Amino acid sequence: MTDAAATRTLRLGVAGLGTVGAGLLKLIARQDELRLPGRLSVSAVSARSRSRERGVDISHIRWTDDPVELALADDVDVVVELIGGSDGPAKRTVEAALKAGKPVITANKALIAEHGLEIAALAEARNTHLLFEAAVAGSIPIVRAIRSSLSGVVVQRVSGILNGTCNYILSEMLRTGAPYESVLADAQRLGYAESDPWLDVSGMDAAHKVLILASIAFGAQPDFSQVTVDGVSQIEAMDIALSAKFDYRIKLVAEAFRANAKTVRCRVAPVLVQKDHPLAQISGPLNAVVIESDPIGRLTFSGPGAGAGPTAAAVMSDLARLFEGPAQPPLGRPADQLTAQIAAVSSEADQGAWFIGASLADRPGVFAALTEELAEAGISIDKLIQESAGDSGAAPVAIMTHPCPRAAVERALAKVADLRITADAPRLIRIEQRS
Amino acid sequence: MTDAAATRTLRLGVAGLGTVGAGLLKLIARQDELRLPGRLSVSAVSARSRSRERGVDISHIRWTDDPVELALADDVDVVVELIGGSDGPAKRTVEAALKAGKPVITANKALIAEHGLEIAALAEARNTHLLFEAAVAGSIPIVRAIRSSLSGVVVQRVSGILNGTCNYILSEMLRTGAPYESVLADAQRLGYAESDPWLDVSGMDAAHKVLILASIAFGAQPDFSQVTVDGVSQIEAMDIALSAKFDYRIKLVAEAFRANAKTVRCRVAPVLVQKDHPLAQISGPLNAVVIESDPIGRLTFSGPGAGAGPTAAAVMSDLARLFEGPAQPPLGRPADQLTAQIAAVSSEADQGAWFIGASLADRPGVFAALTEELAEAGISIDKLIQESAGDSGAAPVAIMTHPCPRAAVERALAKVADLRITADAPRLIRIEQRS
Repeated sequence: MTDAAATRTLRLGVAGLGTVGAGLLKLIARQDELRLPGRLSVSAVSARSRSRERGVDISHIRWTDDPVELALADDVDVVVELIGGSDGPAKRTVEAALKAGKPVITANKALIAEHGLEIAALAEARNTHLLFEAAVAGSIPIVRAIRSSLSGVVVQRVSGILNGTCNYILSEMLRTGAPYESVLADAQRLGYAESDPWLDVSGMDAAHKVLILASIAFGAQPDFSQVTVDGVSQIEAMDIALSAKFDYRIKLVAEAFRANAKTVRCRVAPVLVQKDHPLAQISGPLNAVVIESDPIGRLTFSGPGAGAGPTAAAVMSDLARLFEGPAQPPLGRPADQLTAQIAAVSSEADQGAWFIGASLADRPGVFAALTEELAEAGISIDKLIQESAGDSGAAPVAIMTHPCPRAAVERALAKVADLRITADAPRLIRIEQRS
Repeated sequence: MTDAAATRTLRLGVAGLGTVGAGLLKLIARQDELRLPGRLSVSAVSARSRSRERGVDISHIRWTDDPVELALADDVDVVVELIGGSDGPAKRTVEAALKAGKPVITANKALIAEHGLEIAALAEARNTHLLFEAAVAGSIPIVRAIRSSLSGVVVQRVSGILNGTCNYILSEMLRTGAPYESVLADAQRLGYAESDPWLDVSGMDAAHKVLILASIAFGAQPDFSQVTVDGVSQIEAMDIALSAKFDYRIKLVAEAFRANAKTVRCRVAPVLVQKDHPLAQISGPLNAVVIESDPIGRLTFSGPGAGAGPTAAAVMSDLARLFEGPAQPPLGRPADQLTAQIAAVSSEADQGAWFIGASLADRPGVFAALTEELAEAGISIDKLIQESAGDSGAAPVAIMTHPCPRAAVERALAKVADLRITADAPRLIRIEQRS
């Protein structure tokens, strides 16, 4: 068995040569140091710019302008798609490869989250591999863990910090007290945020990733339209500082859990977690995933969630899988047996404890007016801090409610807005009550 | 592909029906809730006592007194070995099954650590599976992660908390300030420690586990005689309390790292880790593993390291693997290609920073005598605490040294012993210098 496997060589076509693609070529060049069960060679590459400096010699590898042509080349056994984007050339390349019966390895979270069902069905129809470890949580081998290692337990909840940019921003806002805009600008300068940060800070990137994990863990059809998504751009430094006084951290948490036998909730939003919570400990650009299951309890995985090396390592883990045996359904179960549905939760049904952050105008009666609106909406206050207004003329206030429907808080805050007693738009953030 | 896989049934023979075996039968009874790629049935079981209450109905399963007979039965496709012990019936059962070409799944860390090379060779000769996810870190899917997901990176170090009993004891000693003996007695009462705790508190259990991870991660021949092993029974409550004043925690750390291209160091010992270190956060009966690799950096996995449910879940993850494809070398590389050696490090070569804990006799000149011995041995003191002697008449002292060979500290402490200035045997504990 062993000698045959050890001498087997897979010939790759790599479509997309950004930092991850270059990192992959560097790692393949070092394969004698690795423990791969077979050999890898690179037959062809494709990217937008041939001349870009990549820190790796590609002069001996055939250059192909069209990634679809690369995918179909006779000397390409496996297609590695690192182009990115849910549609366009990435999708065309993946589809062409799978239709030709070639294994596809991709880091493309948007593609799998938005077209996962049809692409998985394509792979299954041709009995070929579609692997995407690098699409979720970078170097953390979480996709294979959920698909294979944890296929013998009942997953109850998957939650995590899946976007390193947002986690870096929130960690820095806590550390420095600086506002969102200036921390984002620093993150861009340091390479922790893209020049167009929207996909990250909006929560969309984390939403793509958690939907992929949810589909596998719960046997659910990926349906991106049903994921509830909120990002970090509305969070004020004062919300983070006052949460810390309550011994909480604000994290952008991506989570999925089973609401009933056929329904899975999936959402990304800022959440207050207790400072001893496993996700509270994850700082800077790290990612983490917590899997709660029966009969294990809680498993926590953490590590670098992005970057050339970590993401290339995840691609390598999928390449290693190709040597291990025949293809399996990309989403764990066959696409036509993904019977659970992702379904958004209504604001009325969304029960929880809530953090309200706002800046109150510094004049008599304002605080009473705010708390009266909450009382009228039947919202009970657990804890509250109001600080002195200082130079800004607006007094920071943070309220933690007892459990109630989100809709009740939303209605109360709408009335508060009519009273014109706050200097800014109040923030409404879920409090995770479990430690 | 899918329909064929989904209808495939594997018939198990389960040898050993302690808590893990019973947990496994319960989980198999729930398999309709799981995501396994095929079906499992249990043809036969074997254990010491047929009548013991196990909380699971085994009346419909054939009982076999002899586990070797069970392994060889025609209606047993897969043997699950949960007997335990490095030799005796466990080894005979595993060998009989492998020689008959049947896949073996075992939770037996002692067997793999002490006879891994020959048993892996047996499995390879018959092209069959030998899987042992449950042998290391309970529910944490770390064996498959290192063997498969991380086969495309260069592992530099594996370290972890691999014995929940020791971690529980150390956590409780920190929390309560109580001495080792009373915390151990409590742990035994609560079921966190065995009535004979030797295998755990001596560090042997953790040593078995880390040797298995080291063999896979570094392509090394498992050689248990070369693992350096120390346990927790010598640690005093004062060592833990004074370490905490330096912002350190004492943990029983199992670690393996490459000393050079062909040599791997593997050891289990109490270690002082900074309170922000990933392993410092792991408290109570949890396990954790940190993998440092190029080009990922640090990955951390944590979760329940023992117990019926978590360990049965790990066995299930191996059963799921059987549906995924042909056997691979049990230790990652073929047994005859495990070219690195595990080699103990001499005390002279063992460079590090050291913690010295002792109780000094409460009389003039004693402290000066201690520090003079250290100075004479060329040992430089980084930090030091001496507390008041109190009622015991002995003054607790804790010293943290600058880096120096372990042998130098051992020689100094031998001279200190001759001076009869300490009320107890001084403790010498490595300080992990990286955060």
